[in-house]
Amino acid sequence: MAEITAQAVKDLREKTGAGLLDCKKALAEAQGNEEAAITILRKKGAASAAKKADRVTKEGLIESYIHVGGKVGVMIEVNCETDFVGRNDEFKAFCKDVCLQIAAANPTYVSREEVPETELAKEREIASAQVLGKPPAAVQKIVEGKLEKYYSTMCLLDQPFVKLPEKTVKEVLTEKISKMGENIQVRRFTRYQLGA
Amino acid sequence: MAEITAQAVKDLREKTGAGLLDCKKALAEAQGNEEAAITILRKKGAASAAKKADRVTKEGLIESYIHVGGKVGVMIEVNCETDFVGRNDEFKAFCKDVCLQIAAANPTYVSREEVPETELAKEREIASAQVLGKPPAAVQKIVEGKLEKYYSTMCLLDQPFVKLPEKTVKEVLTEKISKMGENIQVRRFTRYQLGA
Repeated sequence: MAEITAQAVKDLREKTGAGLLDCKKALAEAQGNEEAAITILRKKGAASAAKKADRVTKEGLIESYIHVGGKVGVMIEVNCETDFVGRNDEFKAFCKDVCLQIAAANPTYVSREEVPETELAKEREIASAQVLGKPPAAVQKIVEGKLEKYYSTMCLLDQPFVKLPEKTVKEVLTEKISKMGENIQVRRFTRYQLGA
Repeated sequence: MAEITAQAVKDLREKTGAGLLDCKKALAEAQGNEEAAITILRKKGAASAAKKADRVTKEGLIESYIHVGGKVGVMIEVNCETDFVGRNDEFKAFCKDVCLQIAAANPTYVSREEVPETELAKEREIASAQVLGKPPAAVQKIVEGKLEKYYSTMCLLDQPFVKLPEKTVKEVLTEKISKMGENIQVRRFTRYQLGA
């Protein structure tokens, strides 16, 4: 079996914009052949979705959800490229699902890129303190694992999708992008909890 | 006719919490008699509403409004004292009206107290520059007038109530407080405009 170097994975990521794990898997499947790996990614929709993720979004929907009793409310803006997709029922359903997700799972940020550096440093420090005394190699792994856990709690896109918890919100979003053929972005959200 | 001193107006305001103009009018109507003026204010509901405005609110409703087409959305939190009022139809209708108000009139702040001092200084400077050369006494009046205009554009409570523009939102709110017998506060709002 061909050896998959970190550099090869990095190159493939840059070319396709697909996720790290997807690139690794595709390269392994393609026995290290980049062209073949790209084709594999394209077939999966991961590459094309990622490429679409660079395109400008300025259409879309404002959607809201008020939980029964009026104690919790969510409002979101989801952007897409054309008004045509903005009026699409599947797009609307996705916006509604994201509202429910935010109401239920209470994220703080849309994506991990939004987490302030100071917040990350604090999380890293806490995680490091918890694994004090373990071998350095293990420590780094554990700390990164704890950070991933933090992202999957605090960041909407990294959260397990409430309606289908084996996928993350980001994975569901990527599927929608592939299916609808347009870049789609959750631009912002606000969540109110009565008196909080 | 009895002379109404500024001190008398100030005293009445402190006792009742009613507005400056209401106190002046009530004192004039009562020929300077404070007790009678308080009764007049109470009858109008202005005094009692103001007193209620000090009471703690932690119940209420989260309400939202998405304008047809999903390009503008509003979410608000309105607080009251008891869940009983929170579930009252008139309270709910008021919350809906405030959402529509915010969608239509696009305020930036809930009340004038929220306007940052730097923002006010800037508005004052612009207004002063516009009336350069007029007599100082006139200038102050004009500047204050322009600031009032600014408040009535930027601050929800100072805006003309869209459904009944001869009243401000605050006046309508005060009526609701008097009628429902509980302090009611618009705690916060968010307004999204697609792509803005």
